[in-house]
Amino acid sequence: MSLDHAATKPHERLAAALADDMAAVNDMIAARMASEHAPRIPEVTAHLVGAGGKRLRPMLTLAAARMCGYDGPFHVHLAATVEFIHTATLLHDDVVDESDKRRGRPTANLLWDNTSSVLVGDYLFARSFQLMVETGSLRVLDILANASATIAEGEVLQLTAARNIKTTEDTYLKVVRGKTAALFSAATQVGGVIAAAPEDQIAALYAYGDALGIAFQIVDDLLDWQGGAGIGKNIGDDFREGKLTMPVIRAIAAGDTTDTVFWTRTLEKRVQETGDLEHALALLQQHGTLDSTRDDALMWAERAKDALNALPDHEIKGMLTDLADYVVARLV
Amino acid sequence: MSLDHAATKPHERLAAALADDMAAVNDMIAARMASEHAPRIPEVTAHLVGAGGKRLRPMLTLAAARMCGYDGPFHVHLAATVEFIHTATLLHDDVVDESDKRRGRPTANLLWDNTSSVLVGDYLFARSFQLMVETGSLRVLDILANASATIAEGEVLQLTAARNIKTTEDTYLKVVRGKTAALFSAATQVGGVIAAAPEDQIAALYAYGDALGIAFQIVDDLLDWQGGAGIGKNIGDDFREGKLTMPVIRAIAAGDTTDTVFWTRTLEKRVQETGDLEHALALLQQHGTLDSTRDDALMWAERAKDALNALPDHEIKGMLTDLADYVVARLV
Repeated sequence: MSLDHAATKPHERLAAALADDMAAVNDMIAARMASEHAPRIPEVTAHLVGAGGKRLRPMLTLAAARMCGYDGPFHVHLAATVEFIHTATLLHDDVVDESDKRRGRPTANLLWDNTSSVLVGDYLFARSFQLMVETGSLRVLDILANASATIAEGEVLQLTAARNIKTTEDTYLKVVRGKTAALFSAATQVGGVIAAAPEDQIAALYAYGDALGIAFQIVDDLLDWQGGAGIGKNIGDDFREGKLTMPVIRAIAAGDTTDTVFWTRTLEKRVQETGDLEHALALLQQHGTLDSTRDDALMWAERAKDALNALPDHEIKGMLTDLADYVVARLV
Repeated sequence: MSLDHAATKPHERLAAALADDMAAVNDMIAARMASEHAPRIPEVTAHLVGAGGKRLRPMLTLAAARMCGYDGPFHVHLAATVEFIHTATLLHDDVVDESDKRRGRPTANLLWDNTSSVLVGDYLFARSFQLMVETGSLRVLDILANASATIAEGEVLQLTAARNIKTTEDTYLKVVRGKTAALFSAATQVGGVIAAAPEDQIAALYAYGDALGIAFQIVDDLLDWQGGAGIGKNIGDDFREGKLTMPVIRAIAAGDTTDTVFWTRTLEKRVQETGDLEHALALLQQHGTLDSTRDDALMWAERAKDALNALPDHEIKGMLTDLADYVVARLV
């Protein structure tokens, strides 16, 4: 990283490099979320889309397409598609989690109702498929239909894995792929597909998005245990909700029978007392699972960077490398 | 109708004529609703799919394809697609309506939770797009993506139109198209598309499904006011929930200021007292809106039958004609 690069974050540099494309994506999102007949739809969507967020997923699609030499116009449709699918899953997640905050603002299900969140999510999902159809690429539809199924499957899996102390690392990885990596990898892959890139580059784009998404989610789950600057969540939320993430899964596997009694009470029965969170954290430290999980995140970030080797030299390639470092830099 | 025809209902004769195809559809549904990773998914889906129902929508797709001379295999994928989309909307509707009964059995959201209904619905929706991709037809994807958007839009419109006594007949028709006719017309249309039927036949199939769906929903809404054999719902449910259907919309439009006070109290404020349902029914009778709505339903059934004129002679064509009559026969 050069000095002037250090001043801005990699996703900000990506946003600057892709500014014209992103403006076109924002216009398309605004146009396509409209509903002539049902004004509630753009109200709800605008609340969420207006809340900003980094628009990381659509940027990944644009970046992949540009890096593979694509000159448009359908990368814009695909970036909007990816953001619509992401927004639809957020709307449905908020119903699922009974959340009341998202990106620091009240959630749609709190401002309107669960009903609106469910139906507007469905609308955006249908709209996303309309956008894909416009690209004329069956392969793009295949990739994103598969990703959508994996996302829903991952969410259901997370639901049934919660509060189950027998959850394995393998199940955790499937959940992570579903909730985060499936859309990241589809976002980068379709960018390559629409650019008609060679198959090895398309495979590399998939591998980058997959590894980046896994690193991203592992870091998110770690920060729930060790905190971090500006993450906007409290330490121990996952513990209180009985969510099993990597550091806990490993600590359970390494623990003795006394530990099992503790995890069964706190996570499965969710009977939690003062001092339990501190004791849980002490068990993670005792078994070194925060460190080993951190090592995993760094390994996935390395894999993401390695995948980029197969891609042509391009200004954007360096930014994607930096992005992989940035995702795990929140930990160190 | 000949005498032996009178013995069985038209959808039963359709089911018999399409028995092999329907068996293939049922196999495909069972295979595709499975999830290797998340057993909750087939549990929830099996509960709903196992409840039976008439499988009217997939039968319409099979009937349209066969009538246009199609020999397979993708009409089976499309029929399964249509049933998946229908099942997904039922799962989401039950969350929206907070229903506790569906087809006479407890709803999925009661047996499991809202969360499962939302996520399994999403999964089936994604699966339906995977099935469409397998047909290799972008036009089919276009039609069903549009239908899905119309369905969601109609549901949101219904939500915002409920308890609003200014709701117009035009809005009612949009809601009806969204909640029922959009999937009926897409189901018949894609049957023609996959058979590569001439454009006038595809248009006729669309028109048939659209008119049949509208007739079907108007009859459903009428039965809510006047009852009927084996409809499994109570008279006045819509009134109690503040849902505005055609007979009420017309009675409100024809009423005087005293009536407006009544409708405002009962439907908008939902302050209802003993005798209100009877008074509402008396107003519908006074303004003849049950009869005029019944005339509308009959007119839509006629339109459905007229549309069939453009289609080639076929054993199934007569059954579709009878089906249009049967849908409104529940009224007379």
